[in-house]
Amino acid sequence: MTYEDAGLLAPGRAGAPAEGATRDAAFLRAMLDAEAALARVQAPPEASEAITAACAGPFDVRELALLARPGGNPVIPLVAELTAAVPEQAREWVHRGATSQDILDTAAMLVAWRTLALILADLERTAEALRALAAEHRDTVMPGRTLTQHAVPTTFGLKAAGWRALVLDARDRLTAVRDRLTVQLGGAAGTLAASQEYGADPLALMAAYARELGLAEPTLPWHTLRTPVADLAGALAFTAGALGKPAADVLLLSRTETGEVSEGSGGGSSAMPHKANPVRSTLIAAAARRAPALAAVLYGSVAAEDERPAGAWHAEWETLRDLLRLVGGAAHHAAWLAEGLRVHPGRMRANLDLTHGLIVSERLRTRFPKDVLARAAEQVRTTGTPLADVLGVEPELTDPTRYTGAAGPLTDRALERR
Amino acid sequence: MTYEDAGLLAPGRAGAPAEGATRDAAFLRAMLDAEAALARVQAPPEASEAITAACAGPFDVRELALLARPGGNPVIPLVAELTAAVPEQAREWVHRGATSQDILDTAAMLVAWRTLALILADLERTAEALRALAAEHRDTVMPGRTLTQHAVPTTFGLKAAGWRALVLDARDRLTAVRDRLTVQLGGAAGTLAASQEYGADPLALMAAYARELGLAEPTLPWHTLRTPVADLAGALAFTAGALGKPAADVLLLSRTETGEVSEGSGGGSSAMPHKANPVRSTLIAAAARRAPALAAVLYGSVAAEDERPAGAWHAEWETLRDLLRLVGGAAHHAAWLAEGLRVHPGRMRANLDLTHGLIVSERLRTRFPKDVLARAAEQVRTTGTPLADVLGVEPELTDPTRYTGAAGPLTDRALERR
Amino acid sequence: MTYEDAGLLAPGRAGAPAEGATRDAAFLRAMLDAEAALARVQAPPEASEAITAACAGPFDVRELALLARPGGNPVIPLVAELTAAVPEQAREWVHRGATSQDILDTAAMLVAWRTLALILADLERTAEALRALAAEHRDTVMPGRTLTQHAVPTTFGLKAAGWRALVLDARDRLTAVRDRLTVQLGGAAGTLAASQEYGADPLALMAAYARELGLAEPTLPWHTLRTPVADLAGALAFTAGALGKPAADVLLLSRTETGEVSEGSGGGSSAMPHKANPVRSTLIAAAARRAPALAAVLYGSVAAEDERPAGAWHAEWETLRDLLRLVGGAAHHAAWLAEGLRVHPGRMRANLDLTHGLIVSERLRTRFPKDVLARAAEQVRTTGTPLADVLGVEPELTDPTRYTGAAGPLTDRALERR
Amino acid sequence: MTYEDAGLLAPGRAGAPAEGATRDAAFLRAMLDAEAALARVQAPPEASEAITAACAGPFDVRELALLARPGGNPVIPLVAELTAAVPEQAREWVHRGATSQDILDTAAMLVAWRTLALILADLERTAEALRALAAEHRDTVMPGRTLTQHAVPTTFGLKAAGWRALVLDARDRLTAVRDRLTVQLGGAAGTLAASQEYGADPLALMAAYARELGLAEPTLPWHTLRTPVADLAGALAFTAGALGKPAADVLLLSRTETGEVSEGSGGGSSAMPHKANPVRSTLIAAAARRAPALAAVLYGSVAAEDERPAGAWHAEWETLRDLLRLVGGAAHHAAWLAEGLRVHPGRMRANLDLTHGLIVSERLRTRFPKDVLARAAEQVRTTGTPLADVLGVEPELTDPTRYTGAAGPLTDRALERR
Repeated sequence: MTYEDAGLLAPGRAGAPAEGATRDAAFLRAMLDAEAALARVQAPPEASEAITAACAGPFDVRELALLARPGGNPVIPLVAELTAAVPEQAREWVHRGATSQDILDTAAMLVAWRTLALILADLERTAEALRALAAEHRDTVMPGRTLTQHAVPTTFGLKAAGWRALVLDARDRLTAVRDRLTVQLGGAAGTLAASQEYGADPLALMAAYARELGLAEPTLPWHTLRTPVADLAGALAFTAGALGKPAADVLLLSRTETGEVSEGSGGGSSAMPHKANPVRSTLIAAAARRAPALAAVLYGSVAAEDERPAGAWHAEWETLRDLLRLVGGAAHHAAWLAEGLRVHPGRMRANLDLTHGLIVSERLRTRFPKDVLARAAEQVRTTGTPLADVLGVEPELTDPTRYTGAAGPLTDRALERR
Repeated sequence: MTYEDAGLLAPGRAGAPAEGATRDAAFLRAMLDAEAALARVQAPPEASEAITAACAGPFDVRELALLARPGGNPVIPLVAELTAAVPEQAREWVHRGATSQDILDTAAMLVAWRTLALILADLERTAEALRALAAEHRDTVMPGRTLTQHAVPTTFGLKAAGWRALVLDARDRLTAVRDRLTVQLGGAAGTLAASQEYGADPLALMAAYARELGLAEPTLPWHTLRTPVADLAGALAFTAGALGKPAADVLLLSRTETGEVSEGSGGGSSAMPHKANPVRSTLIAAAARRAPALAAVLYGSVAAEDERPAGAWHAEWETLRDLLRLVGGAAHHAAWLAEGLRVHPGRMRANLDLTHGLIVSERLRTRFPKDVLARAAEQVRTTGTPLADVLGVEPELTDPTRYTGAAGPLTDRALERR
Repeated sequence: MTYEDAGLLAPGRAGAPAEGATRDAAFLRAMLDAEAALARVQAPPEASEAITAACAGPFDVRELALLARPGGNPVIPLVAELTAAVPEQAREWVHRGATSQDILDTAAMLVAWRTLALILADLERTAEALRALAAEHRDTVMPGRTLTQHAVPTTFGLKAAGWRALVLDARDRLTAVRDRLTVQLGGAAGTLAASQEYGADPLALMAAYARELGLAEPTLPWHTLRTPVADLAGALAFTAGALGKPAADVLLLSRTETGEVSEGSGGGSSAMPHKANPVRSTLIAAAARRAPALAAVLYGSVAAEDERPAGAWHAEWETLRDLLRLVGGAAHHAAWLAEGLRVHPGRMRANLDLTHGLIVSERLRTRFPKDVLARAAEQVRTTGTPLADVLGVEPELTDPTRYTGAAGPLTDRALERR
Repeated sequence: MTYEDAGLLAPGRAGAPAEGATRDAAFLRAMLDAEAALARVQAPPEASEAITAACAGPFDVRELALLARPGGNPVIPLVAELTAAVPEQAREWVHRGATSQDILDTAAMLVAWRTLALILADLERTAEALRALAAEHRDTVMPGRTLTQHAVPTTFGLKAAGWRALVLDARDRLTAVRDRLTVQLGGAAGTLAASQEYGADPLALMAAYARELGLAEPTLPWHTLRTPVADLAGALAFTAGALGKPAADVLLLSRTETGEVSEGSGGGSSAMPHKANPVRSTLIAAAARRAPALAAVLYGSVAAEDERPAGAWHAEWETLRDLLRLVGGAAHHAAWLAEGLRVHPGRMRANLDLTHGLIVSERLRTRFPKDVLARAAEQVRTTGTPLADVLGVEPELTDPTRYTGAAGPLTDRALERR
């Protein structure tokens, strides 16, 4: 069998940029980048070059995975293979002063950094498409719905502007987290004792290592100070929810009875020729259901005992990868969703009339006592007579398109944000 | 790159039987088994054989994964490819009357059934090894610890018997769930209308389908009645915890200062030649941290709207697979852990004496007032004088090995369970 | 301030039977029941009576809560107060041989037992109301919806029968768990050494204790073998989901555009006189969102180290109470929801026609090639011409009420279950 | 019964400042503050004063809780009671233009703001105490432990500095979140239409409302843009973990066999006179287990449909309160823990010698081949001969106190942070 997990159960992320950036091969690449960078900041040129060259070479991911079992992490066999792959005189410079966690944590941060770049690009695409939708439909009136029922009118522009605000909130949080991602370098128990023993200035080494990899420099080795992972957890879980909000709305607005929006290209069915399913929204919604639980595991690992915890750290690896990949897939679908979304103002207008004016009953509270309005509402519901007729007011007073409050100015203000 | 996810980040399950049973290829195999069985219970012999034969043929998992995106599930492209792979006259019998969810849910149940068999075998191995440990150490006295502190003596036999009881609880729950795993067959929206339109007796077809696949027959199609998945979630999360308990204990008992047990073959370190890490316990502990969150996602999908939910169902697929695989890996490590565990009665005995008799101070509560005991305890702690001397009682009264209560009979009773 | 938490933020459970059964006072009552029962099975009549009498007396919950802080649990101050409240000669029989966890765990099981009785009663009410709805609407046709879109017709009877099936699944799981709830009695570290020291036969004492309280007898003290709590977690999380399914459906079916069902008495709004919100479904849906996370905490506590864990046990207390209360509130609302639900067959019929026959396009797959159907569907969608006209078939072939497959027999079969 | 939930099951927060700040009465107070502020920014002086005065008056929390059920939130009955409590002419100004969610969300933000102030004060106390510990023990050497085993030496100073770094990370995240907490004001569906109808400038009103309450002004009404709640979720879950790390370490370091630290005043036991349990750490550890699951619920509510979701919003209320209270309790215990922690350098020193020099075997890797070291380690383990003797090196080379690497400078650098 050629593939192990190739995304068969994961249409939400199969083929998305973040998928490639988070697969085993990408983690292996990042581990090798970490080892090579470590050599470059401390080894003499010849050894540094030899190690860097060996790090480019092919390694068998599956073999490493199986060899990782006795020691409980893949860096141990990787270092063994890497050492064997370099000339004798370079060997002492391989992994010098480092512990497995230095490499694995640094690799995870590199993978996160690279994946966040891809996610951020998709969030920008999404935000831009939503900006255009909000601007185009600034004054497209539609029913505002609360607790499933028509409440008062709103505009599609305000709704899309709100979606965009969430996407920008996600972008800002992910960007801030990305800028703080640091290398890990602490040696066996976070004191950098071996590096010092080898003659290095530990703090200078840590700084050089960070520069070499383009990540931030930590104040302390963070083997058991898991702020970077927790920050990723929170920002990614939030992003999943931020994308899940428009997805939830699209799922409701595109229901057969409502029909106010539809996905650019609805997904087909294996049985029913007429169906056009909101597949992208569905897959984003699925990601939004899974992400918080993964984040919870990562938050749970913050309480990490000793100088390397027995379990809390190991629980992070696949969880962080899954979270990055899930959110990356959702962001990619969200960009397509936003760019392709079709809006049906005619259906919105028709739906506004479903309650024969009741959708603006709030507006009449200043003119009629509560009990009069309640009786009128009852009459409208049972007879279908328009509310304006029942109350004997001019029709424009119950015109839904004339009761959108500050929807326009709010949309404008929201779109000013960059 | 040959592999996508090959377990590089997953020493907890790499190479475990459950890993192979849950990979994409295994899910694809189960989907094809589901399609072939459906043909066999309704198609004429020639078409049935052609479809069964085509189901044996190779399909490209990655290609299917990518083709799954427009429709949001892999069955749609699989049916297309399968249809193309059979002779013209058999085509109308492919997937007849079924919907994608029928195949994907049935496949998930087949995968679960097959994986549970492997997990159960490892649980039996674990329980048997623990039985032997409990019997051998029925009377090996060690400190009982509560809230991290020595409390009163217990025995390693009772502890191991307790571990075994949890493993048997897990076995019983998984077995019960496995026996209830059902096929899925409901057609487009759970009414089996297409099957009936094609001339079949829908309920008889459902029964035959279940018989053909060796799974139970559901009372109703369960597209949105997710009891089987929820039952799996609970039993698997419990199993992770049940294995996590001995792992947690081994991690504590094998700490350098305590040293009462050690893993059969401790894992090495990339930096420290002397280390022998409790790696299996660590990996089991990591699984126990992750499983509850995955189960929560599955429980969250029980509230599944409509006749097929847009997101709740899709969130189940990878989550259930991850949970099966995680628990399968933990069970495999647990079997090795239990079979290889080394017990050090000498260290247990030495640790019992660390508090100079205070570990049995409870026993003296019938003979001395509380304040006298408290003062004596303080004197023991500060001077190291044995409690017996401080209180002037016969030494055997403070002998930890003579204060194990019902540990023996409780162990015997627990081991009677099969 | 008279009340601490009086349910202001909890309309989902305020006033529900399970709320009263799980409040602090109920836990205190159960702890006192546990202490009294312990006295009755081991103390001489006079002491037993004195302790039982003292256990009836008032204790200040808040005071105990504050006094619980130094020792980390409320049993320590409770035992002190209880001891002070009995005559001198009875004091040695208070809490004899027990540890705090024996009382707190036993109390939690008593509270669970009592609360489950209330929840089960509400589930029976719910199931009975759903049975009536399913029977009445066995042949009421409505759109079957998958991924938010009309798929093929189904019946409200089948839908209600499915809801009932979930409720019965929940009932069965809760009943099974309840029947297995056991007392806790193990002494300081689970060996019952103190009881034995006091001259009791520990195993006989355990059995008598269970009989006295009407709970099951455990094979082993389960201070760190948390199967009973995990079983509760799973069954309760499932129940929340099982009730969340009909709630999710009611929320969708009662949307303004759909209007196929409505709650017996919709909730009002502080601003809009015309609104009738599906409040019960909303509150049940909220519970279904929270329960899985609480269950995850409890599953996480199964990996409990030592003979009493430092944190895992303490994390269970409020979590289990919240879960019982949340599910109890949801069950109570569900009973009212099911009993009061109003079904609108006219709206169902009207909605079936929204797609001009496309809802039965699956049925025509045997008669027309796929591409012909796809073109016809497109024409129906753009022109509104009925599908029967476009394809030139007899109208009854596209009559949604004649394409319900096995919905009737499936409903009948499901309702046979008791 | 006087109290409903009075903290009997919650020694982790009973009596903590955050408990009082988050109880029902505090939420009610905040809702009244929100109503009063709304009146002050829009009503004429007389009405404004009358409403503000009425808001000071007593309301029955339990009664409101029960009256909240039909509408599903407590603001509906509160507004009714408040309206009845003001003079006729002020009534039209009560709750004018607002919807229930405006008041409840604003109240939640007020409660969060006030509670965070208390939590931050306890974090400052904690950080200050940890700073002192780290400074005092900058050079106190102790075993560094990875995967439960002695690895290489570290210092207690570095460990305490790491704890402090986490606490400061938590402080910084909570502070940033607090500064962004905003009022909610959007009216029935987030358009502020009613306010506009009443003649107000909606955006100016929103700004004035924010100023009046001392919270930030949102760009958009955030009824379904839940960034503030998600930000709280993440920062609070992180804080729980950040406090859980020192708690986890204290639990391990204070184990009977290790004894390197002990809590200032250990908690007693109901059965064993000699015990001094690390109760504060236990209660913090319990909070760290629960917080991530609560945060997951809040992240799950970000995907909030429509203009007010039916369930996602309601699931937030108790969850956010529980999270605030849990973390508030943990922070309070953490302050006491840090201030009272007793450090036992003698036990640290003794434990460093447990492995007869093996704890510095890493240091010798530059001088001896790997296999020689491995054989030596084996000899040390079996015979107890010091490593220096086995290898024939000068004893200071294996002196654990001389192999602490950059622990000192790292500690200094970490303590520079304010």
